[in-house]
Amino acid sequence: MNIKSKDLGELEELCTQIRERIIDVVSRNGGHFSSTLGAVELTVAMHKVFDVQSDPFIFDVSHQCYPHKLLTGRWEEFETIRQFGGLSGFTKPKESSADYFVAGHSSTSISLAVGAAKSIKLNGENRVPVVMIGDGSMTAGMVYEALNELGDIKLPVVIVLNDNEMSIAKPIGSISKYLSKILAGKFYQKLRDRIDKSIVQKLPEGANYIAKKIEESIKLITPGVIFEEMGIDYIGPIDGHNLEEIIETLDIAKGLNKPVIVHAKTIKGKGYEIAEGQNEKWHGVGPFNVETGEFKKKAAAKAATAVYADALSALAKKYDNVVGVTAAMPSGTGIDRLMAEFPNRFWDVAIAEQHAVTSMAAMAKEGFKPYITIYSTFLQRAFDQVIHDVCIMGLPVVFAIDRAGIVGNDGETHQGAFDISYLRFLPNMILFAPRDNQSLHQAIDFSYKLDKPCAIRYPRGAFKELKYESNEFELGKAQLLKEGTSNKLFIGYGAGVSKACDTEALHEEDIAILDLRFVKPLDEEILNELASKYNKWYVFSDSQKQGGVASAILEYINKAKLCVSVDSFEFEDHFIVHGETLKVEESLELTAKQLVEKI
Amino acid sequence: MNIKSKDLGELEELCTQIRERIIDVVSRNGGHFSSTLGAVELTVAMHKVFDVQSDPFIFDVSHQCYPHKLLTGRWEEFETIRQFGGLSGFTKPKESSADYFVAGHSSTSISLAVGAAKSIKLNGENRVPVVMIGDGSMTAGMVYEALNELGDIKLPVVIVLNDNEMSIAKPIGSISKYLSKILAGKFYQKLRDRIDKSIVQKLPEGANYIAKKIEESIKLITPGVIFEEMGIDYIGPIDGHNLEEIIETLDIAKGLNKPVIVHAKTIKGKGYEIAEGQNEKWHGVGPFNVETGEFKKKAAAKAATAVYADALSALAKKYDNVVGVTAAMPSGTGIDRLMAEFPNRFWDVAIAEQHAVTSMAAMAKEGFKPYITIYSTFLQRAFDQVIHDVCIMGLPVVFAIDRAGIVGNDGETHQGAFDISYLRFLPNMILFAPRDNQSLHQAIDFSYKLDKPCAIRYPRGAFKELKYESNEFELGKAQLLKEGTSNKLFIGYGAGVSKACDTEALHEEDIAILDLRFVKPLDEEILNELASKYNKWYVFSDSQKQGGVASAILEYINKAKLCVSVDSFEFEDHFIVHGETLKVEESLELTAKQLVEKI
Repeated sequence: MNIKSKDLGELEELCTQIRERIIDVVSRNGGHFSSTLGAVELTVAMHKVFDVQSDPFIFDVSHQCYPHKLLTGRWEEFETIRQFGGLSGFTKPKESSADYFVAGHSSTSISLAVGAAKSIKLNGENRVPVVMIGDGSMTAGMVYEALNELGDIKLPVVIVLNDNEMSIAKPIGSISKYLSKILAGKFYQKLRDRIDKSIVQKLPEGANYIAKKIEESIKLITPGVIFEEMGIDYIGPIDGHNLEEIIETLDIAKGLNKPVIVHAKTIKGKGYEIAEGQNEKWHGVGPFNVETGEFKKKAAAKAATAVYADALSALAKKYDNVVGVTAAMPSGTGIDRLMAEFPNRFWDVAIAEQHAVTSMAAMAKEGFKPYITIYSTFLQRAFDQVIHDVCIMGLPVVFAIDRAGIVGNDGETHQGAFDISYLRFLPNMILFAPRDNQSLHQAIDFSYKLDKPCAIRYPRGAFKELKYESNEFELGKAQLLKEGTSNKLFIGYGAGVSKACDTEALHEEDIAILDLRFVKPLDEEILNELASKYNKWYVFSDSQKQGGVASAILEYINKAKLCVSVDSFEFEDHFIVHGETLKVEESLELTAKQLVEKI
Repeated sequence: MNIKSKDLGELEELCTQIRERIIDVVSRNGGHFSSTLGAVELTVAMHKVFDVQSDPFIFDVSHQCYPHKLLTGRWEEFETIRQFGGLSGFTKPKESSADYFVAGHSSTSISLAVGAAKSIKLNGENRVPVVMIGDGSMTAGMVYEALNELGDIKLPVVIVLNDNEMSIAKPIGSISKYLSKILAGKFYQKLRDRIDKSIVQKLPEGANYIAKKIEESIKLITPGVIFEEMGIDYIGPIDGHNLEEIIETLDIAKGLNKPVIVHAKTIKGKGYEIAEGQNEKWHGVGPFNVETGEFKKKAAAKAATAVYADALSALAKKYDNVVGVTAAMPSGTGIDRLMAEFPNRFWDVAIAEQHAVTSMAAMAKEGFKPYITIYSTFLQRAFDQVIHDVCIMGLPVVFAIDRAGIVGNDGETHQGAFDISYLRFLPNMILFAPRDNQSLHQAIDFSYKLDKPCAIRYPRGAFKELKYESNEFELGKAQLLKEGTSNKLFIGYGAGVSKACDTEALHEEDIAILDLRFVKPLDEEILNELASKYNKWYVFSDSQKQGGVASAILEYINKAKLCVSVDSFEFEDHFIVHGETLKVEESLELTAKQLVEKI
């Protein structure tokens, strides 16, 4: 699509077509919706002003990249977005050379732009990296690390700050207040422009000193003073749906030859009236009716997230010292409910996983019992804080790890594959997992009693209900669900227990099933006992094989010199693609039916 | 020591005594020197104004905590600082209730203060958390995540910004320039004070609107405008060695009942003339002659860091696309030398590990070959970026991991124990290690050829030289150093190879020794072959046992159904204490002599 030759009217028409295509496909497939609709004009303008084949286009998180995909040869294929085998919901270089980088986690974009800008300079090229970043992503510390270097080295980078005053949920923190204040005070910028043009430019040559002084005093009334003070030029706020204004501004920004933030005010959901200005509800959606805005189907079974919220709510009612936090995922983690019920004890601290963990560590030190509720993939962001501020201190913090295992359509950047592998080797850490709704309640009750750090994991979507009654948790105790007549033992962990049960049901032999419950500490006693009865063990867990559940068992088997063989049905050494969870499992050969064949 | 009752003269005398004690002990023991000397008056003032038994005293990194230790019942014991079994060089609650938290990594302090402040509010107490943080620590993103929440919730926290314009090395980035600009422009603050007092306070009651407007316009000329805009009050800059000024200011700050930054200018090394204003050289020191400032002994053998710098320098001379980065550890990592030789291709990006990794990922995408040179313990900070920005993209970034294994006197917050465990399960990642200086050169040469992410680890201090010639590296190939006549096989990884050799030399049997070289991918062929000759395997590596080298071997043994037993001499499931490395190893029963006894 040759955007360069289109005039303003044609580009506006193009924006309309893009919106129609997004509304049509997402209403059928589901996907990220409101932020991508809000970014249509900004994206079209980026393509008009910059050259996607040479200038690095960097989308932060990249859930707003649908217009970009439509503009770069994927109009038809867009039909397949987020489907197994189809387009990714995020930027992906394997899909198109127009996609500069994989994204999915927040706030990496400015760092990428800095790296790109350094490369461009070293190569003596005149390409200019252009970033699109939402106001929500501005809360994560990485952004400031990147701005700190960028403001120092001052290489050309254009940062489009797509400010819909939203984040995924409502905006949190002083930075968002600061941005709102800017949006409310647009006249300052105009004042600045006027002074700039009327005074500074008319000064005779040689009057640099005076010009500089005037420039400095003007800066003081610039709305983007934080950015200016960090050495980044600031233009804005502009109307992020006024194509002409955006194109003009980006043209100026591109020509400045230094880092500049273009602050654009946009409306989330723009162009689909029902979603306009709505927050979390329309951020990521399932299929919906375009006419009415009604979502087509709800999951039949109660999601583990909701069960967790029930359990935590009951616990918080019982014990005053229960507190908790989410990092910008209030409804995704169920913490929205807790924040409503206990507004003084549960917080959304914005996209700030590091701060979330360390601030809760201090609350544990003060005698509170913090529940850090977080997706498996996002806890990776706070790995050092888990070690340095929680585990070394041995504090009774609970990590409630949501979206463990395969997450479905979001794909490789969001899979909850690694948490067992990256937590298991940490001294003082206790790792256990519920297998169903009943045991999730019990796990939360049990976690309250622990005086050390622990992590509980549960999957996206609903647990399968099992026919086995769940015992109360006891530190390091597994639960044997059934004995078997064959020499085989199925060992399940977390959601892996129901996979073990399903597989056993399909298998012709009568096989013993153990719910391992604790991957750290292991139930050595029961493993010893079972080794004497069953010598072929199979491990079921939706986690990475290297360093995972089977690996823990192997370490113990070796230490105790048990004579058993172990097959692990965990994830192999690859990043897992996106798509409907069942199809992804099939592709990994991990459905119960496929596993029966392997055994 | 009852500071509260002392008058100014007595407190100044106390500062002198503290300095004398620090200079005396550190000149004998070594330790963190210049920043702790620079913080004497600030610390004494904190103790005068706040109550260490109730107000949380939070020291960022806490290498500047020696005066605090001296003031809290550890005057005599200070003699043992950083020695095995003695006081830690950092704050440590197990040592004293006056130490609020363990620290060692940068930029956690404000998050801790936020958690403490929330707890205090929930408990209805009137304690006030007080933080001491250096200007260097202000570059890490965590600080902004914490300020973002603190400026929003506005709970009382006093942040003493100890600005010695230094970081460990020279200050980097726009934030440090910003702080310097503030220090140069002190008059603004006085202006503000004058206006505040003379105008605002004289307004009649009810003139709130006008007062607010004046307040707002004053803010525009406040030096700490970034902090003010983020909702944090700012006072400063003050003279951080003028005890009277500090005490007065902290008194005001404590009474404000909201978050406030007190910006104090200090001189690193204050009171020991030879070190005053010096940067990296006097940050952390070994024993030295107090009269002359000469360091008493140099390590006899060339440190692995220096060998790495040699190798990287040679590589960078040969290939124009070699680039690299350090996160505020230029001399610690040897990157200072590269920055001097190739000022356009090597960067110090400040304490910003996340940004370091992601910005280098973009350079790899642009065809450069980045060497991210970082301590094992600090790479933990960028764990998610390693996964999300390097491994998913499969980019040829080299992680050169310094300070792998036991780090000696810094202790538990700095041990390089976990890197193998937290990198081994990442798809696309290649892990290998040199065993001596020769193989470190070869490892760097080999890393250049890889088209995937890889990590190389090497220890603090010098490698032992070995009698075995090192082969060139070949992907996934181990090197058999010697065959043996017994049924035993020693498998070494990295520095573990020399431990294996030393142990073999002390053992009465003739034992085969394998340098594993690659923990990922493993050399399956040679393991198969060796399993047929030797059935008792012993693994030597200075890494965590869980998920570590032996764990990788166990996973393979299980998969290949090899009949061998494995004993791992890696680290057990505890955090490792501080002290001279040899003594620490003894306490872990990991010296060659102790291992011979175990075998």
